[in-house]
Order: sequence, then structure tokens, then C-alpha cells
Amino acid sequence: MNEVSRMGASPAPIATHRQAIRVYFEDTDAAGIVYYANYLKFAERARTDMLRDLGISHAEMMKTDGLVLVVRRCEIDYLKPARLDDLLTVETEAAKLGGASVELRQRVLRDDELLAELNVLVVCIGKDGRPARIPDYVRGVIPRAAQSD
Amino acid sequence: MNEVSRMGASPAPIATHRQAIRVYFEDTDAAGIVYYANYLKFAERARTDMLRDLGISHAEMMKTDGLVLVVRRCEIDYLKPARLDDLLTVETEAAKLGGASVELRQRVLRDDELLAELNVLVVCIGKDGRPARIPDYVRGVIPRAAQSD
Amino acid sequence: MNEVSRMGASPAPIATHRQAIRVYFEDTDAAGIVYYANYLKFAERARTDMLRDLGISHAEMMKTDGLVLVVRRCEIDYLKPARLDDLLTVETEAAKLGGASVELRQRVLRDDELLAELNVLVVCIGKDGRPARIPDYVRGVIPRAAQSD
Amino acid sequence: MNEVSRMGASPAPIATHRQAIRVYFEDTDAAGIVYYANYLKFAERARTDMLRDLGISHAEMMKTDGLVLVVRRCEIDYLKPARLDDLLTVETEAAKLGGASVELRQRVLRDDELLAELNVLVVCIGKDGRPARIPDYVRGVIPRAAQSD
Repeated sequence: MNEVSRMGASPAPIATHRQAIRVYFEDTDAAGIVYYANYLKFAERARTDMLRDLGISHAEMMKTDGLVLVVRRCEIDYLKPARLDDLLTVETEAAKLGGASVELRQRVLRDDELLAELNVLVVCIGKDGRPARIPDYVRGVIPRAAQSD
Repeated sequence: MNEVSRMGASPAPIATHRQAIRVYFEDTDAAGIVYYANYLKFAERARTDMLRDLGISHAEMMKTDGLVLVVRRCEIDYLKPARLDDLLTVETEAAKLGGASVELRQRVLRDDELLAELNVLVVCIGKDGRPARIPDYVRGVIPRAAQSD
Repeated sequence: MNEVSRMGASPAPIATHRQAIRVYFEDTDAAGIVYYANYLKFAERARTDMLRDLGISHAEMMKTDGLVLVVRRCEIDYLKPARLDDLLTVETEAAKLGGASVELRQRVLRDDELLAELNVLVVCIGKDGRPARIPDYVRGVIPRAAQSD
Repeated sequence: MNEVSRMGASPAPIATHRQAIRVYFEDTDAAGIVYYANYLKFAERARTDMLRDLGISHAEMMKTDGLVLVVRRCEIDYLKPARLDDLLTVETEAAKLGGASVELRQRVLRDDELLAELNVLVVCIGKDGRPARIPDYVRGVIPRAAQSD
């Protein structure tokens, strides 16, 4: 019996999290499209809500365990522009789980059209400011497919 | 000899502080103009730099005196839109100094053209979360014309 | 039979529109609270979705009638700070309908706690850049209580 | 005599452009540091001002040649956090010039400390929405070292 299956109370790991994001004036720029930095806001909203849906509170992690999750690296490909009033979907998947880090793939879509793709490396940091092992109650909700060992 | 002139080391109170602000893509929206909330960002940059120019550090106030300055009320009139690449000037004046608050008038201009006008009520808050007297080293740099008593 | 009741197909005018807004990291600042300019973003999202719920598309108004709705004046009182992860409600009501303008009252709440109050004056602008009469299909969805004549 | 030296009136190509950026409350988040998406704003301000310093107006390019410069891809490494009141420097260099694209390296520093590094791929787009050759008056100000042919 592995560690994950013993965590009876925790929600089952999910493959892909989906979040709806509406585009407002605040998100657009004078070129009539969503400003390039704002896709990172959309992606962070989706990651936060994925954690919330999995029953993990970032605030709780900070208080109880003194751990914070920080973005260490982000790659983004802009394929097609999103526009005012668009209803977007942000898809988030854990791609690779390390000891102190997790690599996420995120996609911004308008219906079936892929607008942007992100690879985001999130690192768990302890009170001493150094990388710290991601706690088991977080590991337990990350799909096994993403776990390297 | 009044209180202000005795503060030999402090800079002389200024009537109007002027700050240059360039408009970038991030500030504009799909209507091709500066997004209405962003004038409040410009105004806050100007207030911060006015304090800095007067030798007052907000961070220092928080650490030494446990005081924070917060916006309690803001009124803004939008007269003409600012656009991408505009070089704006934000003018800031203390209009009225109370015990725990200061009322500021701010104007956003493009050359001589008035684009927006703000009245901002800033309150000084102590560690207990209640209004606290604005310290003398701040009062000393506010022009006497604005002082009600 | 008044004008409103003749508009059989249009939705009934509503008294108060309510919109849920989640607070993310992007909305907060180093003081640990929602940055003061961002309440204007929340308010604009609520106004946009109120129009959408009433079957009115701002984009459509621009294309068909050459009309835009712009904020001419905004007053905001900050009563209590909103914080990370808060689930807020923005309430919007039409307070007064003029020929070319409408005055809105907006409130930002956390459960029953009032955090901020806004008065927003929105003006309808025509192709010539001058105030233009708000079209009847918009007037028809504004509650009669707010209509001055 | 090479192409660059023949462009008598144009400024000499520069190796590295440097831009000062002050951190304000609007840039920070509840973790007390600059929000991760805002580094992309800083980087865009630096690229815009680099073009301006080189005598190239993006607005002019759009009007005269029907060309726009868009970010197609962005990679960013977050090494150390920037904080409120920091005075940052953004360094920008053209790393590789293609026919319709240019790859830029950008670094965000606080004094000598490297806080973030970006690789940004900017593509020139014509009226038909397809990649278009970067015009010679832009090529002429990009250092020869970056030019692949």
C-alpha cells in the first residue's frame, strides 16, 4: 500500500484542472488585445484555485509549516491574442514532481483554440529561504504520472 | 520663529510637487486610452516620491514609529484621456492638514492640458489600527498654508 | 402603458446586481491588503457583467450605435481592507439616470462587512466625442426608481 | 563601408541599454515582494525606452509601415525577489537578429545583484498578420554582433 492510497480523506489526484477566466478592460492594452504580462496573472489564478479545489490552502501552509511556494522559472509561448470579453479556459497539469519543486504545464484556450502555453517551475521554500521538501499532503494530490520516483 | 523654521536640517516645505510619468502599454486598455484605475497608480507614485524628496521614508515611519499612511477616500474627475507614449506630469499639493490626516490635491497634466483631478484623503494609522497624530517631522514639511491650526 | 413595459423582450430591470470577486496575489500589495486602485478594477468588472446580464453588449453599442460609456467621475471611500483569498461581493445599483449619464452606487462587501463604497458617474459619448443620449434599450433596463423624469 | 556606417543620421548601435525602474506599492504583493508578472512590465518599459532612445517610434512604425512588434515567446528566471522602494536597473541587449524577429536578453538588477533574467523573442508582424521583415532603419541600430547574416 503506497503513501498516496493511505491518505483516505484527501481528494483524488486530478489530471487537469480547468478554470474559466473572463477578459475585462483592465486586462487589455492599446493594441486591443490582452497585455502579455496578464497571462501570468491568469495562470496564477488557475494555480491558486487548483490548490484550493484540492483542499490545500497556501495561507495555511505558510502558517503551519512555514512553507511558501514561489515561481522560480516561467516560459510562455504566445500563439494567438485574447481579446476583450473573451471567456478563456486555463488548463493546469502537474508535469513533473521533484523533491522540492513541481513543474506545471498550463494552457490558455478560447473554446478549442490554443492561445498561450506556459511551463512554470514552482519551488517550495522553507523559513530559512532554502528549498524544502514539498509536504506529503500536497504530494498526495499530484497525479502519480507526474511523479518521477 | 515658527516651528517649521526651527527644523534647520529638514528641507523647506514645498508648494507643489511635480512628477513625470510615462504612459506604457501596461497602462492602456482596448479603448486606446489609459485605464481609469491606473490614474490612481500614477497618483500614488507621485505621493511616494514627494515624501521621498522631502526626506520622509514610509518604510522608516512604519519601523520607527509604527505608523502607516493609508488612503481613506479618493475622488477623481476624468476630463480628457491620456494615451500611449504620453509624457504626463502629476502635480501634488497638501490642501489641508488635520491632526491625523492630510488632504491632497493632485492633477494629471499633459503639457498644459488638465487630464484628471484628484482629491485624496490620507490618514495616519497607529499600531492599534486607529488614527494617530501625524508626527512633527512630517508636519514640518507641509506648507503652512495648508495647516488649519 | 409606459415605455419600459412595452419592451416585452427585454429583461426586467433589476434593483441590485451582485458579483462575486476572489482576491488573488495580483490584487494585493506589500501592506498585505488589496491595493487601493484595484477596487476600481473590481467595480468595472461588476458594471460590465451587470450590462452583460441585462443583455447589453458594450462592444455591440460601439459597433451599432457608435456609442461608448466612459467613467467621468469616481468617488471611493475605503472603510476596511480586503485581504488575500477573500471572496468579495460587489453590489451595483443605478442611483440616478440622466439624459446622457447614469450615476451608480457600488459597494464592496466581505459577507456582511462593508469594505468600500463607490459613486461612479458614467457618461454616454457619441462618435463626435460629445455626450449623447443613452439609448432606450439601455434606459429600459434601469429601474424606474432611478429615473428622474 | 558597411550598411550601419552609411546611416549617417542614425544613432550608433548600442551594446546594452539601461533603464532605471523604481518599485512602488502597485508592483508588490502580499508576500512583500514584486509580483512575478510585473517583471514583464518592467521589461516592456525598458524595451520601449530603448527603441525611443534609438529614435524608433513604435507608433510611427505602425502608421507608416503597418508593422507591429509583438512578443512571441518569453522565458524568465526569478533569482532573488525585488522589494518595495528598490531602485532597479533593467539591462537590455539584442542577442540575435533574424529576418522577421529579434531575440533580446534582459536582466533586472538591484545594484550588482541579479534578480531576474529574461529571454524575449519579438516578432515583426505585417498588416496581413504574418511575420514581416524588420525594416532596415531598425536593423541599422542593432549591434552587428547580434546579426547572424
